[in-house]
Amino acid sequence: MAAAFGILRRDFFGERAMKKNVFYAQSGGVTAVINASACGVIETARKHKNKLGKVYAGVNGILGALTEEMIDTTAESAKTIAALRHTPGGAFGSARYKLKGLDQNRAEYERLIEVFRAHDIGYFFYNGGGDSMDTAYKVSQLGASLGYPVVCIGVPKTVDNDLPITDTCPGFGSVAKYVAVSTREAALDVASMARTSTRVFILEVMGRHAGWIAAAGGLAGETEADAPHVILFPEIPFDEAAFLARVKESVTKYEYCVVVVSEGARYADGRFLAEAGGKDAFGHAQLGGVAASIAQLVRGKLGYKYHYAIADYLQRAARHIASKVDVAQAYAVGKAAVELALAGENAVMPTIVRKSSKPYRWTVGSVPLAKVANKEKMMPRNFISKDGFAITAACRTYLGPLIQGEDYPPYRNGLPSYVSLRNQRVTKRLSSEFVLK
Amino acid sequence: MAAAFGILRRDFFGERAMKKNVFYAQSGGVTAVINASACGVIETARKHKNKLGKVYAGVNGILGALTEEMIDTTAESAKTIAALRHTPGGAFGSARYKLKGLDQNRAEYERLIEVFRAHDIGYFFYNGGGDSMDTAYKVSQLGASLGYPVVCIGVPKTVDNDLPITDTCPGFGSVAKYVAVSTREAALDVASMARTSTRVFILEVMGRHAGWIAAAGGLAGETEADAPHVILFPEIPFDEAAFLARVKESVTKYEYCVVVVSEGARYADGRFLAEAGGKDAFGHAQLGGVAASIAQLVRGKLGYKYHYAIADYLQRAARHIASKVDVAQAYAVGKAAVELALAGENAVMPTIVRKSSKPYRWTVGSVPLAKVANKEKMMPRNFISKDGFAITAACRTYLGPLIQGEDYPPYRNGLPSYVSLRNQRVTKRLSSEFVLK
Repeated sequence: MAAAFGILRRDFFGERAMKKNVFYAQSGGVTAVINASACGVIETARKHKNKLGKVYAGVNGILGALTEEMIDTTAESAKTIAALRHTPGGAFGSARYKLKGLDQNRAEYERLIEVFRAHDIGYFFYNGGGDSMDTAYKVSQLGASLGYPVVCIGVPKTVDNDLPITDTCPGFGSVAKYVAVSTREAALDVASMARTSTRVFILEVMGRHAGWIAAAGGLAGETEADAPHVILFPEIPFDEAAFLARVKESVTKYEYCVVVVSEGARYADGRFLAEAGGKDAFGHAQLGGVAASIAQLVRGKLGYKYHYAIADYLQRAARHIASKVDVAQAYAVGKAAVELALAGENAVMPTIVRKSSKPYRWTVGSVPLAKVANKEKMMPRNFISKDGFAITAACRTYLGPLIQGEDYPPYRNGLPSYVSLRNQRVTKRLSSEFVLK
Repeated sequence: MAAAFGILRRDFFGERAMKKNVFYAQSGGVTAVINASACGVIETARKHKNKLGKVYAGVNGILGALTEEMIDTTAESAKTIAALRHTPGGAFGSARYKLKGLDQNRAEYERLIEVFRAHDIGYFFYNGGGDSMDTAYKVSQLGASLGYPVVCIGVPKTVDNDLPITDTCPGFGSVAKYVAVSTREAALDVASMARTSTRVFILEVMGRHAGWIAAAGGLAGETEADAPHVILFPEIPFDEAAFLARVKESVTKYEYCVVVVSEGARYADGRFLAEAGGKDAFGHAQLGGVAASIAQLVRGKLGYKYHYAIADYLQRAARHIASKVDVAQAYAVGKAAVELALAGENAVMPTIVRKSSKPYRWTVGSVPLAKVANKEKMMPRNFISKDGFAITAACRTYLGPLIQGEDYPPYRNGLPSYVSLRNQRVTKRLSSEFVLK
């Protein structure tokens, strides 16, 4: 009996202690391909069952760890996990929730470790942008001092393309493709209508700090006559007179003008163009956003008829027109995260390393989290034309490869067949509840 | 000599008189597939060179006839014409220009006939919506009385799907697919974010009078829990209290709410929701449109964080996600227009006739232009749920087949490879200039 129990103990607890479980969480704004990274993590972990335990996913990202709400991904079939590769959004739920500094809220970090310990979690894969890399870095530093070391690997994700060091961020290539395709298509529409109707078309895209997404609109055109005729970047202070002159020139030369504007476009004094309007009937600041402000300006000063589109979530959810390169890279960084952990690395993030632009060749590298946390990569000035309204050849060389290839999802009844998970919860083990502030 | 000249005369002028040329024009808002109709017209006309002369296309639609600015499509290669099938927008330019009533501006009709006569044009194919069918009908009536009969065939086109008699209008199916796909994708995004960020997502779509496009958003969901949770149709007067209650219910039940709103959504007194806002800093009416108004309402009364997208031209230019059924029907009505003309028909429009919904089978019929001119087909009440916020099973049965199948354009460098025409002008033959008023 005692011997049998001893064997049982060794088999069960011994293995349990050796084969730590994995906690994976999605963070911040989701993308068309963040689930492809999840797929890369889970499929790769499943290939190393001898070394890794179960993969638990946080319900709503890091909140799931704090509140002990986790999804047991082992309940999902291989087919379902594979389908994550072509499903946009965050399959497990994401969160806009930044852990505070250790000084301000050490309790949150301690709670994380408490949950990790309770569920034998030895690996923390955090799929997000700059803030998330900061969190992952802090957890990697803290675990040891709390007596429960955790291997922390960041998995890069952001449509904003503003993480440093990595050549690009998974999620960006697909938004870039969506914006370039949409700009090209809308331009053909406006060009048809210009003689008797719409002269100016404005497309508002994401990018509050960096103009990478707006820049991608520039790929739609191949000659000077092609749309977009104006791009407004957050990096370049808005010059109203120069902008209006350019719009007028475009309408005069080509009968129409297409403007791609970043939501973060701003004046020299830092005010966003989106804030330029007045108050509405309820006394709220005008909600039209930057496209409406620009449209108003164009009508007021030049008298042109306009239309505008706001891509908003459509751009970052558009898995139907995802970039094949982006999908492959999103998967690759998920896979690499697991492989780095298994290779004994800690507090690192896989990166995309460009080997060559023409032909495009890339590989996966890695960088310490300390070097990427809380840093933003803006567009370099030499990627923006001298006049500030277009992208340069250097920018095209950089962006071009990132939108290459189509990776169509399967369709059923005329619609993309996106997967839903069973989302089976992991049984809670802690008696304490964590209340989010 | 005299005999030879006689033969020459007979061969040249005789044939010229017999083989009348074709005038084709695009009218009103363009679509992702209007060029597929142009392709159908031109390819079919080329197959009947023994009976038909050249196909001339109006530069900017009907304006091209009035100003004698036409494109000689015979200068375009077969490959280029074939590529029109996958190119969105209006390849020859369209126009928002409605010919006035005969009483008000008979000169315009006389000018049309003058140009047709000067260029031996015996066929007028007008590719547009209700207004255009009215124009085509009037020209068909007037030609004879001005001593120059013209065969007038309407080619149906409108994303609004509001032409009567025809089961659907080419252009609509592709917008419907775009809206359904975009709604499904954005819903996955919002669902991921709802716990800590966006609760309500609003997608503004076209449809100033009829709610067909908004209805298509309803195809994104398959169960009651699925997005969209609310659809706002122009046909149903906006009930603020009922709307807010529904949004709140959805957020309570599912954590989030997706709203698809038609740009034509209005109050019981006829005012558009888009007009409900205040004045901006310049004293202009607020430009945010209906999505901004709804968003404001949701935030003001329920306090939820929102995001909104305005699809605008993107929806009707989105050839990259066109419905295969729609493309086929757009081509078919172009082809049928030529065949109807050759069969001796006049003053008719090809229609899509539904033979069966499951499985979907359709054929091409025809209807006298007099019966379609200036009529609008609204959503039948039984296509909208009792509470006015959703589509019914009957509506699904109708809409479902129209978004079936993908018809991807070819890609080059990661972008759709859309064709540009040489657009070689037809030499003017008239000394008089027509000045547009």
